[in-house]
Amino acid sequence: MEFMTGIREKETVGLTALTSADMEGKTVKTEGTVHTIRDMGEVAFVILRSREGLLQCVYEEGKSGFALKKLKEAACVEAEGTVRREERAPHGVELRLTGLKVLSEPAAPLPLAISKWKLNTSLEAKLNMRSVSLRNIRERAKFRIQEGIVRGFRDFLYSQGFTEIHTPKIGAKGAEGGSNLFRLDYFHHPAVLAQSPQFYKQMMVGVFDRVFETGPVFRAEKHNTKRHLNEYTSLDFEMGYIDSFEDIMAMETGFLQYMLALLEKEYAPELKILDITLPKADKIPAVRFDEAKRLASEKYGHKIRNPYDLEPEEEVLIGRCFQEEYGSDFVFVTHYPSKKRPFYAMDDPADPKFTLSFDLLYKGLEITTGGQRIHDYQMLLDKIAARGMTEEGMEQYLDTFKYGMPPHGGLGIGLERLTMKLVGEDNVRETTLFPRDLSRLEP
Amino acid sequence: MEFMTGIREKETVGLTALTSADMEGKTVKTEGTVHTIRDMGEVAFVILRSREGLLQCVYEEGKSGFALKKLKEAACVEAEGTVRREERAPHGVELRLTGLKVLSEPAAPLPLAISKWKLNTSLEAKLNMRSVSLRNIRERAKFRIQEGIVRGFRDFLYSQGFTEIHTPKIGAKGAEGGSNLFRLDYFHHPAVLAQSPQFYKQMMVGVFDRVFETGPVFRAEKHNTKRHLNEYTSLDFEMGYIDSFEDIMAMETGFLQYMLALLEKEYAPELKILDITLPKADKIPAVRFDEAKRLASEKYGHKIRNPYDLEPEEEVLIGRCFQEEYGSDFVFVTHYPSKKRPFYAMDDPADPKFTLSFDLLYKGLEITTGGQRIHDYQMLLDKIAARGMTEEGMEQYLDTFKYGMPPHGGLGIGLERLTMKLVGEDNVRETTLFPRDLSRLEP
Repeated sequence: MEFMTGIREKETVGLTALTSADMEGKTVKTEGTVHTIRDMGEVAFVILRSREGLLQCVYEEGKSGFALKKLKEAACVEAEGTVRREERAPHGVELRLTGLKVLSEPAAPLPLAISKWKLNTSLEAKLNMRSVSLRNIRERAKFRIQEGIVRGFRDFLYSQGFTEIHTPKIGAKGAEGGSNLFRLDYFHHPAVLAQSPQFYKQMMVGVFDRVFETGPVFRAEKHNTKRHLNEYTSLDFEMGYIDSFEDIMAMETGFLQYMLALLEKEYAPELKILDITLPKADKIPAVRFDEAKRLASEKYGHKIRNPYDLEPEEEVLIGRCFQEEYGSDFVFVTHYPSKKRPFYAMDDPADPKFTLSFDLLYKGLEITTGGQRIHDYQMLLDKIAARGMTEEGMEQYLDTFKYGMPPHGGLGIGLERLTMKLVGEDNVRETTLFPRDLSRLEP
Repeated sequence: MEFMTGIREKETVGLTALTSADMEGKTVKTEGTVHTIRDMGEVAFVILRSREGLLQCVYEEGKSGFALKKLKEAACVEAEGTVRREERAPHGVELRLTGLKVLSEPAAPLPLAISKWKLNTSLEAKLNMRSVSLRNIRERAKFRIQEGIVRGFRDFLYSQGFTEIHTPKIGAKGAEGGSNLFRLDYFHHPAVLAQSPQFYKQMMVGVFDRVFETGPVFRAEKHNTKRHLNEYTSLDFEMGYIDSFEDIMAMETGFLQYMLALLEKEYAPELKILDITLPKADKIPAVRFDEAKRLASEKYGHKIRNPYDLEPEEEVLIGRCFQEEYGSDFVFVTHYPSKKRPFYAMDDPADPKFTLSFDLLYKGLEITTGGQRIHDYQMLLDKIAARGMTEEGMEQYLDTFKYGMPPHGGLGIGLERLTMKLVGEDNVRETTLFPRDLSRLEP
């Protein structure tokens, strides 16, 4: 009988291990994909790409044990060679090749010059050939940063006593109303895709006090802009026993601080590749909605067209204003008008035309919507009635409040938008592995 | 200007902090939900539930500063009192109440006796009143264990150089073929929900070498059994540069070992609540498919009806056999017949009727399917042709291989099934927050 006893030690050595001082002069094997070949005649540089980065391998005619001309770019290989310090090579190390085994070969030359530092091609082409374009070092680095953001979100919230939940994406009714829902047939019953885990995370606050979820949400919005996707990853949390809706903003600030520190510590190579200077989140200004609108209008002469909503241009101006005045890339805009927030938003007792809610703007773009929710059953029923809505299909959501719920609130963060602003892109598709928009359903 | 500077210190103290030795005799505030009230006349026990567990609070007529009869079960409160050691109380501590503030009140009495140790109600009732039934201590503990499983999966894979990815759930074509797909209209284009991230994770192996995803998958299977869901959470990974498909089983064994250690370390209270003895995963037997079938047949007299598939009863017998013979709750069954595996499965060069693939059985239930995939472009095209399939709609998946891919493989783990077996339940709905099955679309 054969037994599995745990991960197997590999015979090959990874890039990070290769760069350690005691490897000098040793003969080792390493794996990777031929990223590019620079043939200089007697000598050639074969650059291997692996998950840890690029490794310069030196081919010498007659010494390396194989014929260079048979080696193709994009071949996956196991290379054998001697480790040498070389300050001019990436990571200060190179491998003098003594042998090479081809593990697999491409069937055609690459359609994109992925070994260029910057991929010189259109966004459209990059998205059409996603599994190739992301092999570019800079392209893939963006998604390592994205990993760090999600990882930071979860690890921070675990440390704050939150429980992770998994809520269904197929349901009978949407959380925010009917217009932007994808509809499907569920065994002959009408169903919709979740546009947010809102109802479920609230329902779970009564169970776990604090919950979070990181998962896909679906919005059938007919927007074709640089900041909209029809499917995106939402980082959601919801917390009970809050004293004020500011507890939620404080928790988000804590997340941002933790996440930025994690990126600095664990994702330094990718920050360097992308030449990113991380923003500061030690002190994030918070300004009321009406005050923010007034500031943008007074400081930049922007005409207020709609007093109940922020236009994208106003968000840009507010972001600019707080960068100029307080040196902050982030700004919380609080107390959004009640009529622009969903029924479950808690109105401000001091002035019910406004809500105890907020958006977080990052470099002039909304990346978070959050706020306190109504926790009182009767207040919720009254607000539904006042809006002329029906309780139908919300019975189990409403029952949660009938049987008691603590004061609570939460937020949702758009992962791709946050990544976009962090890595300095201006189209959210650049920071989505496989974007879904009005005209794109593939790959 | 107001600024957010990070998480706020709360005035209230949580349960874990309350149990520390230096709290004895101190007067503190704590928050929670009234789980149950046991009125003994002059004295009453008010049990508060919070995310950290149950706290016994002692009400004394005339001393506690409020009227007990006004306090309702399921009210959310801030309690003030003096901390006292009390060996008979949960966690060895109780709070002698000196004051109580009601934060919110229920509008109706609870429909389930959630304060009972075991919730004495049908699965159907539990699912219909999910936000109430999960307030039971044992019910919610299962989902804390589930969190530990997912957390262990991610943390282990991060440590092994995997990158987390987020792939779309709406697509133009499914990974495994057409029969079990939910269909929807995507802006007047036919679309389907992803039944697995298979194609995407393979496409990303060429980019990151090792990737994983934890997310929902959707299967329109018309099975109504205790082990099927139509939407479930899949823990997927895919790894490049494997030497053999056994590297994948070894990686899964490593995950199980890591995850079980994490549960023991971080989820001890929940293990105790559920009275769980964790299984061992230090040495997991691996047996060939045909050999496993033969064993079940010879040892237990099970008649082999279908030589190409394992019936659920056979899985149970194989699980029983390896528990009896080797004391293992887990067993890898390898080399599944090619005709029962998808086209992208790598056939065994030694006998192409079988594949380099495996299932992992846990207590007689399949919780994982995995294996080596075809990485050679021509081999993939040939297999598609041999099966009479069309390449249509798979162009971008196939192009990935055209432009080179390392030998690779991976697996998918059903989270709810793994949780079910770990906590000793026998219906997968018991370990799903909001299950979706043939007849259930709500809540």
